[in-house]
Amino acid sequence: MSNTFGKIFTLTSFGESHGAAVGGVIDGFPAGIDIDLAFIQSELNRRRPGNAKVATARKEADEVELLSGIFEGKSTGTPIGFLVHNTSQLSSDYDHLQNLYRPSHADYTYDVKYGIRDHRGGGRSSARETIARVVAGAFAKLVLQKYGIEIIAYTSRIGEIRLESDFTGFKELQDSIKSNLVNCPDPVIAAQMEEYLAQLKEEGDSAGGIVSCLVRNVPAGLGEPVFDKLHARLGSAMLSINAAKGFEYGLGFDFAGRKGSEVNDEFVIDRASNQESGIKKECPDSWLLAPDSISTRTNFSGGIQGGISNGQDIYFRVAVKPIATIAKEQHTVTKAGEEVTLAARGRHDPCVIPRAIVVVEAMAAMTVLDMILLARK
Amino acid sequence: MSNTFGKIFTLTSFGESHGAAVGGVIDGFPAGIDIDLAFIQSELNRRRPGNAKVATARKEADEVELLSGIFEGKSTGTPIGFLVHNTSQLSSDYDHLQNLYRPSHADYTYDVKYGIRDHRGGGRSSARETIARVVAGAFAKLVLQKYGIEIIAYTSRIGEIRLESDFTGFKELQDSIKSNLVNCPDPVIAAQMEEYLAQLKEEGDSAGGIVSCLVRNVPAGLGEPVFDKLHARLGSAMLSINAAKGFEYGLGFDFAGRKGSEVNDEFVIDRASNQESGIKKECPDSWLLAPDSISTRTNFSGGIQGGISNGQDIYFRVAVKPIATIAKEQHTVTKAGEEVTLAARGRHDPCVIPRAIVVVEAMAAMTVLDMILLARK
Amino acid sequence: MSNTFGKIFTLTSFGESHGAAVGGVIDGFPAGIDIDLAFIQSELNRRRPGNAKVATARKEADEVELLSGIFEGKSTGTPIGFLVHNTSQLSSDYDHLQNLYRPSHADYTYDVKYGIRDHRGGGRSSARETIARVVAGAFAKLVLQKYGIEIIAYTSRIGEIRLESDFTGFKELQDSIKSNLVNCPDPVIAAQMEEYLAQLKEEGDSAGGIVSCLVRNVPAGLGEPVFDKLHARLGSAMLSINAAKGFEYGLGFDFAGRKGSEVNDEFVIDRASNQESGIKKECPDSWLLAPDSISTRTNFSGGIQGGISNGQDIYFRVAVKPIATIAKEQHTVTKAGEEVTLAARGRHDPCVIPRAIVVVEAMAAMTVLDMILLARK
Amino acid sequence: MSNTFGKIFTLTSFGESHGAAVGGVIDGFPAGIDIDLAFIQSELNRRRPGNAKVATARKEADEVELLSGIFEGKSTGTPIGFLVHNTSQLSSDYDHLQNLYRPSHADYTYDVKYGIRDHRGGGRSSARETIARVVAGAFAKLVLQKYGIEIIAYTSRIGEIRLESDFTGFKELQDSIKSNLVNCPDPVIAAQMEEYLAQLKEEGDSAGGIVSCLVRNVPAGLGEPVFDKLHARLGSAMLSINAAKGFEYGLGFDFAGRKGSEVNDEFVIDRASNQESGIKKECPDSWLLAPDSISTRTNFSGGIQGGISNGQDIYFRVAVKPIATIAKEQHTVTKAGEEVTLAARGRHDPCVIPRAIVVVEAMAAMTVLDMILLARK
Repeated sequence: MSNTFGKIFTLTSFGESHGAAVGGVIDGFPAGIDIDLAFIQSELNRRRPGNAKVATARKEADEVELLSGIFEGKSTGTPIGFLVHNTSQLSSDYDHLQNLYRPSHADYTYDVKYGIRDHRGGGRSSARETIARVVAGAFAKLVLQKYGIEIIAYTSRIGEIRLESDFTGFKELQDSIKSNLVNCPDPVIAAQMEEYLAQLKEEGDSAGGIVSCLVRNVPAGLGEPVFDKLHARLGSAMLSINAAKGFEYGLGFDFAGRKGSEVNDEFVIDRASNQESGIKKECPDSWLLAPDSISTRTNFSGGIQGGISNGQDIYFRVAVKPIATIAKEQHTVTKAGEEVTLAARGRHDPCVIPRAIVVVEAMAAMTVLDMILLARK
Repeated sequence: MSNTFGKIFTLTSFGESHGAAVGGVIDGFPAGIDIDLAFIQSELNRRRPGNAKVATARKEADEVELLSGIFEGKSTGTPIGFLVHNTSQLSSDYDHLQNLYRPSHADYTYDVKYGIRDHRGGGRSSARETIARVVAGAFAKLVLQKYGIEIIAYTSRIGEIRLESDFTGFKELQDSIKSNLVNCPDPVIAAQMEEYLAQLKEEGDSAGGIVSCLVRNVPAGLGEPVFDKLHARLGSAMLSINAAKGFEYGLGFDFAGRKGSEVNDEFVIDRASNQESGIKKECPDSWLLAPDSISTRTNFSGGIQGGISNGQDIYFRVAVKPIATIAKEQHTVTKAGEEVTLAARGRHDPCVIPRAIVVVEAMAAMTVLDMILLARK
Repeated sequence: MSNTFGKIFTLTSFGESHGAAVGGVIDGFPAGIDIDLAFIQSELNRRRPGNAKVATARKEADEVELLSGIFEGKSTGTPIGFLVHNTSQLSSDYDHLQNLYRPSHADYTYDVKYGIRDHRGGGRSSARETIARVVAGAFAKLVLQKYGIEIIAYTSRIGEIRLESDFTGFKELQDSIKSNLVNCPDPVIAAQMEEYLAQLKEEGDSAGGIVSCLVRNVPAGLGEPVFDKLHARLGSAMLSINAAKGFEYGLGFDFAGRKGSEVNDEFVIDRASNQESGIKKECPDSWLLAPDSISTRTNFSGGIQGGISNGQDIYFRVAVKPIATIAKEQHTVTKAGEEVTLAARGRHDPCVIPRAIVVVEAMAAMTVLDMILLARK
Repeated sequence: MSNTFGKIFTLTSFGESHGAAVGGVIDGFPAGIDIDLAFIQSELNRRRPGNAKVATARKEADEVELLSGIFEGKSTGTPIGFLVHNTSQLSSDYDHLQNLYRPSHADYTYDVKYGIRDHRGGGRSSARETIARVVAGAFAKLVLQKYGIEIIAYTSRIGEIRLESDFTGFKELQDSIKSNLVNCPDPVIAAQMEEYLAQLKEEGDSAGGIVSCLVRNVPAGLGEPVFDKLHARLGSAMLSINAAKGFEYGLGFDFAGRKGSEVNDEFVIDRASNQESGIKKECPDSWLLAPDSISTRTNFSGGIQGGISNGQDIYFRVAVKPIATIAKEQHTVTKAGEEVTLAARGRHDPCVIPRAIVVVEAMAAMTVLDMILLARK
């Protein structure tokens, strides 16, 4: 097992779906940061099932308890222990799955690796594991806010329904994605997605999709070549999320069909910077090395060149597979090698995406903060 | 900088394009392995420019010198230092680039991060950095061979020319990709790719593409949830390669458009295993936990479920952007903020792929070996 | 902050003296181990103040709660979250210390490092931090027991009262140290130590001392040269314990006055091994490389040569300083730079040692288990 | 094997006594530092056998070659590869040792751990391994000099000949230790030590001793509680040096016999700081958190409290055992289990200390620099 994420800012997480609690320890968090507990809880609420139309019926309060590292409302630089109790689980719901390997789940591989497995609700491979990520990501965002760094993820595709182009302005994104259940910036597309998910629920089926993410105001100079390139760290973080199957940044796979003369990002002198004045006011002095006036005419690179941020917007996409749990009957085998059929009982999400948005943001926030702390001069 | 790759089997690399040498230190290499120097050199030869039609004219012997860790032809368990001298560089070729930021290169970002830069030939961001990866990957392959684990990468797309379907049998791949300069298993497609690259050279332009990779005979049970999932480690390794812009495994981004009922991999009892008998003969006993007879009917998952290998073929794809150096005139700026134009002199590769094939294999080999050493019981 | 210990078997700990809880996450714990909760709690009880004569009056239940990683009484290989609630603290006891730097405590250095500090009861620098070590050490012992590896620590010196020679047999140690409050194997010396501590309590003063530790049945071959030599890892582990000021193994500092001809450990063929038969029954096969019959005539080396265990008993000593909190009046300064005097209120331990014994064992157990997991072949 | 030292500033070393070369890769070295090659070589010369009276006759040039990471005399932030060729070795000298385990050497333990061993000159366990430490330590010193941090090690004991008290002023130390072959600050004691070593050479025997080390001008606030306390990292670094058997800082083991009222370090306001003005001129701003005027009346703590530096002098001691190779006849066994006798041929150092002084300084320099880079804000 490797349950620690990061090098300087680290999250060590624990917890199974149907154990006593999920939680973690955040280490390397800077001292003296105001801890806005309401914000942290609100981030956690974003990953809760919000609407029966597109998500599961399991309703847990998921209230985070902070156990250490905070004194009189501020971080002290010591580790922050936290947990969320599991309250609504019914273990008996899973008795029939004890010796059975659900298709495209981690039941079989955990059994092979460990020789033992908490089968209730997926155990450690449950999406409840992401609770710790969201809490730690919320803490990371509290620091990034000081530097003016903003992160926003949104749904760009579910099934065959997708956005035409990737994204427009940041502020528009922020407003538009809140207006619908799938966090898609285009309201028309969003409505189609919602309709599609409702239909899949009806059918007992599930859909894959793509989450896009935009990180802006990252100063130039972030990233550790050669093996900890900024995009390699982001990619590893995203691919560690349940159901993630692909990662690309900038033009990504679309680079394959392009010529250098079309997609090289020419440098220009940016005489009227589009960055709001004062945004870097609180940045460490070392970040001022970057001449603000050098920009690029295009940003096919996705804000990263040679593994190091170049001061332009960083954007990337994460592909997720359809949720493996479906109500349709499937064939599978038992631990003992018998062939059986299986159909999920109860109600399950038809798509991981609506609840994965905040997880993608959390992993991006932790990655960027860790790289900032690594890069301090 | 973060120039160490891996956790137990590690490569720490060094070297710039026009310095004295590139090289590295391999640590954590098992003791008692026969070191086939000819094999290691042959792997290194695979990344050398082989043919003027599709690659650069820089011809260096690139002979690897092994400095330690080997005694009487066998590894001793102590670190293996190695280097390759840089012999053919002409630093003066790069004088005009000293204060200029080439579009979509790492010149600008290195300057911002470090405040100083060896501008000759890209310095540390040069593709010569991959020499250390190939050498260490060759060492890793020597161990994987013992377990019957095989890795093969090939070109599946250059520009708009691409394979229809991903891959067929392993042995067919091995034979077919050697028959052409671009390591594409389909000879007709390969010829078109070669033609396209020749044309781009003529035009002074460059192309992106996709490298596919297949790893077979990896036993079930490899991978460290939750943050070191096998595919997260593979993704990070691939994304650390120069010019890589995307990574996907299994169906990857194509999952986005599929339903769970279509792409879940049902488990079956594999009464006639297609694995050659005896392939795991030398595997550690702990690997025998996996019941060989459990297989999957389909393999959309790409051999990994819940971050752990399931015993099926592992396959993934890496997207690379067009090489940034092109002969066409481009606009850019100097360190001092002047706007200038630039056109690459001399001859440059029109596509990174033919030489990147062996690098992809090397990173895969190092990743799989490191995960094996982490997973020992 | 660096609150993670170990490389494969890791403990990440959190918690302040007067926060909600202290606890941690154990990662890399082998799957399938029977978890004896009563044993773990009994280890924790060993560090509790047991007797008013030699220790503080603070009485907390210190009951450990296990939150994850265990299913039906066995470890599952997933991370083990645990906590112990802080129940008996009275924060107001510490109000007068808020802006004052107690001599030889960490008040000043934490303030300088973090700019903020939870002053109540020493915050993170409190000895309550060792609770997490003891819990994780107890888990480690559960695995080591399987291999027949035993660890025992005892008091060899308090003030000027000390054992003549270091230790005798293991079984004798086990029985004798339980017979007195200071865990000293010699009952006469132990009585003197108890008397001395009682006298110091009366005086409001404190004493330093030495904890000795013996680890037996460690197979030959453990340790990772060159920077993770077994004794370097043990030394680092011991020096990380509160109040530790020195570490030596084998003859240690006494080597300084000896000649090579006196203290070299000659190898001999051990025709009648003194190791109980069957002790290594459950050891991994890889450990059988060591020819059991090769032993040493003397063991000045302390069971480690070249950073690798040689199969003989490992023994080492840890020097601890007198507890900094004393009832006698001392001079110091405030945060604002005023000179003040201070005398500790309430009752405090006169010596860290009686409660540190189990902490030393715990750190030894974690270190040895981690090295075993690193060394698997 | 674990051949990487440090977390941010790292040294990865390689090389055996009789292989082609010893060397390493320094990573995380700050960019823009002037590289004084003459200084680096001079540090390396300090560990060479200097005088037949107290050291071996093996004379190698030991010239360091820098292979990367430096451009136009300055560090670039990229990894620094370096090597020193082994030139004077005669492998045949060691033929008789191939299957024989020298007492108190690492022959037996390496054989058990790896199953194979380069027996020539001790292979990886040779003191030639320290060459990489000295080179990397010299690089670290180049950075520490910028901050005014100075490190000096000296001989405080050889056999029964020892300094009365630990050390006096820094400048006196610097001058006095150069005046004799054993780097002892007291010329009378030094002469006795030299005489004693000459006598041991005559006898074919060897002596242990103690190296003391003083680090001054380390700002308050350095160290990472709880597991990477500054003294735990220093202890681990020192204990990783060949022949080291003990480590203590401040009063160390002498704390065992003292009372808290005697050895607590009271804080005082230091109205006339004894630190030269301007010494911290180049320190990062974050270090200015420490109020310079707070000092301690005594420094029994050795400059570290709670694992964090308090701004006072840091001092520690390293115990080393007598060199295991002696000319006197000893009993031992062969790999095959035969009992044989052995007497070292040729000339060997009677004591490791004269050549270990610079190694102790190097490890201290690397540790302090790494902690500085970790602590940046």
